[in-house]
Amino acid sequence: MNDTSPLRTVYIVSDSTGITAETFSNSVLAQFDQVRFRSVRVPFIDTLAKAEDVAQRIDQNAQETGVPPIVFSTLVNPDILSRVRQANGIFLDLFGTFVSHIEQALGLKSSHSIGRSHMAADSERYTQRIDAINFSLAHDDGQFIRQLDQADVILVGVSRCGKTPTSLYLAMQYAVKAANYPLTPDDFERGVLPATIAPYREKLFGLSIQPERLSKVRNERRPNSKYAELEQCRYEVAEAERMMRREGISWLSTTTKSIEEIATTVLQEVRLNR
Amino acid sequence: MNDTSPLRTVYIVSDSTGITAETFSNSVLAQFDQVRFRSVRVPFIDTLAKAEDVAQRIDQNAQETGVPPIVFSTLVNPDILSRVRQANGIFLDLFGTFVSHIEQALGLKSSHSIGRSHMAADSERYTQRIDAINFSLAHDDGQFIRQLDQADVILVGVSRCGKTPTSLYLAMQYAVKAANYPLTPDDFERGVLPATIAPYREKLFGLSIQPERLSKVRNERRPNSKYAELEQCRYEVAEAERMMRREGISWLSTTTKSIEEIATTVLQEVRLNR
Repeated sequence: MNDTSPLRTVYIVSDSTGITAETFSNSVLAQFDQVRFRSVRVPFIDTLAKAEDVAQRIDQNAQETGVPPIVFSTLVNPDILSRVRQANGIFLDLFGTFVSHIEQALGLKSSHSIGRSHMAADSERYTQRIDAINFSLAHDDGQFIRQLDQADVILVGVSRCGKTPTSLYLAMQYAVKAANYPLTPDDFERGVLPATIAPYREKLFGLSIQPERLSKVRNERRPNSKYAELEQCRYEVAEAERMMRREGISWLSTTTKSIEEIATTVLQEVRLNR
Repeated sequence: MNDTSPLRTVYIVSDSTGITAETFSNSVLAQFDQVRFRSVRVPFIDTLAKAEDVAQRIDQNAQETGVPPIVFSTLVNPDILSRVRQANGIFLDLFGTFVSHIEQALGLKSSHSIGRSHMAADSERYTQRIDAINFSLAHDDGQFIRQLDQADVILVGVSRCGKTPTSLYLAMQYAVKAANYPLTPDDFERGVLPATIAPYREKLFGLSIQPERLSKVRNERRPNSKYAELEQCRYEVAEAERMMRREGISWLSTTTKSIEEIATTVLQEVRLNR
């Protein structure tokens, strides 16, 4: 891919937020690295008037760029769907394709109801999710050490190794009460797990990181500090990994991993997959 | 749907995390409310040996339950895909279906590369995301009022109306630097916007909530407090809405909305859609 490769517009059209469809379309389109794509998410298309607007935008884009844009749709209402489908785009019906496949396989009819993808704000699951976010916020970076017994998992590791984003993601996506607790030079000198977390060994999961990357991350936060020096980072990472090995704590390196990959591995390892 | 309806297992099989496929499958399956589904996410299936294991799990499930499970796949490697496809399941090839459609439409071949869906930890976008999370954490609930000029958006509203989860979601999903700032009884008595946020009016977006729901949420946090009383909630919500109307701040009610829906609306309104 280079900057002179063609630019193709991609519309993600949904009767709900379109967030899942957008992430999905990014994955699918990453398979075509000869083309540059420009994604436009068009949420809440739940009336015929809005469908008409979208169809016109698609037609106009096709005319202006000389090529039909790609349209990922999660529309469910047949009339709205049909109007958008008439526009001059490469139309990909995410829902319909699989709903009809499942209808055939199960011998059932779908309900064709829209906007089912997210949790309603008054559902039990939603409340659990908000509770988990509040828990993870309250138990970020070793704050508020009471109620650690209520944690589903406690992430441990040196400062800036990725504990906070992972905790928040686990809470937000999976309603997992994820606390996190730093391993510091003081702990390494004492040579034992911090007393606060020692009673919860079965909930601990370690994150580590390459010292070079850690030094870079810390330098952005506190430039030219001892804290950010490569030598200091090497020392802390080596000591943290030694401690985790000695205490039998499972851990992974976050260096090249996305938040989603780290969270998925944590869920697998602590058998929290719900 | 009731508790005697049949229970069908759903495997989400991915060479990466499978998180997007899981959310997508939940949306698709919500169209079939006659059936109860039990979802099992099977991530990181990136070798033939792992594919063999998954295929055996699927076969075993089909045998034990008497019906073939549903299999949502985002596998890309043809050999791994082919092995899982041979198992006794209702196989839905999320990637392949659309990749081949796009190949035909664009006259191109896809790269068949795996695990492209998430941001690599060393990419610019990933760093932006982590920076945004740190920013939103530092500027939660009116803390750390310096650097508000760097915010992409500042959410305002009464305590417990949904500002914190929305800010964190905007940061995590969209790398948006979302601060949030509470509107309190003190502000309502003074009758003007808090001086801290007044200079940033074009970045403000309001969240409101039904007083009854707010009272319920606050009661969980501080049972039987004045703070949680319905009368107090009615007062604060009415005053906050009055202030937002007077100051020309766009706002929405979070009462029945998911975090994703609120975040999507905020992005639309403040024209931050990136």
